[in-house]
Amino acid sequence: MISNDHPRYESLISREKMVNAYNAGILADAGLIAHGRGEAFDYLIGEKTTKTAERAIKAGCAALILANNPVISVNGNAAALVSEDIVKLAHVLDAKIEINLFYRTSQRVNAIFKVLKKAGAEEILGTEEDALEHINGLNSPRGKVSKEGMLNADVVLVPLEDGDRTEALVANGKFVIAIDLNPLSRTSKTASITIVDNIIRVIPALIKKAEELKKFDKKTLKNLIDDFNNNDNLKESLKTILSSIEKFEA
Amino acid sequence: MISNDHPRYESLISREKMVNAYNAGILADAGLIAHGRGEAFDYLIGEKTTKTAERAIKAGCAALILANNPVISVNGNAAALVSEDIVKLAHVLDAKIEINLFYRTSQRVNAIFKVLKKAGAEEILGTEEDALEHINGLNSPRGKVSKEGMLNADVVLVPLEDGDRTEALVANGKFVIAIDLNPLSRTSKTASITIVDNIIRVIPALIKKAEELKKFDKKTLKNLIDDFNNNDNLKESLKTILSSIEKFEA
Repeated sequence: MISNDHPRYESLISREKMVNAYNAGILADAGLIAHGRGEAFDYLIGEKTTKTAERAIKAGCAALILANNPVISVNGNAAALVSEDIVKLAHVLDAKIEINLFYRTSQRVNAIFKVLKKAGAEEILGTEEDALEHINGLNSPRGKVSKEGMLNADVVLVPLEDGDRTEALVANGKFVIAIDLNPLSRTSKTASITIVDNIIRVIPALIKKAEELKKFDKKTLKNLIDDFNNNDNLKESLKTILSSIEKFEA
Repeated sequence: MISNDHPRYESLISREKMVNAYNAGILADAGLIAHGRGEAFDYLIGEKTTKTAERAIKAGCAALILANNPVISVNGNAAALVSEDIVKLAHVLDAKIEINLFYRTSQRVNAIFKVLKKAGAEEILGTEEDALEHINGLNSPRGKVSKEGMLNADVVLVPLEDGDRTEALVANGKFVIAIDLNPLSRTSKTASITIVDNIIRVIPALIKKAEELKKFDKKTLKNLIDDFNNNDNLKESLKTILSSIEKFEA
């Protein structure tokens, strides 16, 4: 039982969710380790949504609203941490939800399917029954995507994605919004918009932002995207880490 | 099968060892996540032993050689990654090996005992049969130490230790040498000497250094310790991280 006045309450709750998800077969082995890497970077950005991340959330949200076929990619870590918020976000954005796993096994796909169903998802793509195809440039099982979903999506929200897959999505003309705590990762550098923040804060922030931005006209939304420079934004995130280290150092 | 010319071979092998150890009951759930945090910091220091870490290894090694009752504390992560090298180091230093777990269960103690035995350890303290006592200031199960070992040790080598326990060891007058990849952690700041480096590189480096320094006289060894300033050394490690981020940024 973790007391909710513990200074690291959120972080400890996430850790508990991850361990439970691992034991329930939702997470691959590498998922727990990846969570630890995320913890380290979250610690370095101060375990809060920075102004820099807020700008990426805003631009990313505008792109998701303007999309013709937006898809939210869900892996084990995302399902373990924010399944209910993902279902809400998909609803607000009228976006599809697709299970998309780096280490794809039927057992894990089915376990994640159940989690998403329980969280209230109606349509779930990327299941074992779905018509899966390979995205160009990635012929391994990692390249499997749903025909109705990521294959034909114009905008994709990918939480905690690996570099090869992000590159393949971008090479296939997708506008990729990545959620990644490491501003130095290949995914962060490759994505169209990278939100350097913890997924447990990003998804609720996207829901709130979507409700606000949906009232805006297309031109205003398009300007929000055009005014956003991912490379500059990543540099800002690095500066946050640098100054946080300098502060610790003092 | 991981090819040994993969650029991140060492890192992938460690990851595989950790997952196997987790499945064998050697690691606590938190151990896999902690490994991920370590990966992130290792990445930031460049996945190599820095000159700064070399200085800490040298001073720490001198302290271990001069100790009357040196003890090497072993937790799940250390056992999973470097059990054979720990046994070698204990032999070179004539140091005791003590199983000391944050999440102590008989099952995990016994699993680690077997790993250390298989690695060639003769005497292993901190087992369920050992006379365990509580170290002053830490009355939870986390404070359990062997009477013959850490309770009466003058110098303790602690890999990947938590902050509370490091503080208790220092408060009890121990000279604590910590191995911790995060130079900002409470353990790093509290320890007498902190080696900011990956345990898979540190233990072999300590074996080599011990063989060299054992030939030195006591005064020379004492000077090595006196000339070492942990706070300054940690600042140097932070500078390495800062410049590595700046390099990535360019």
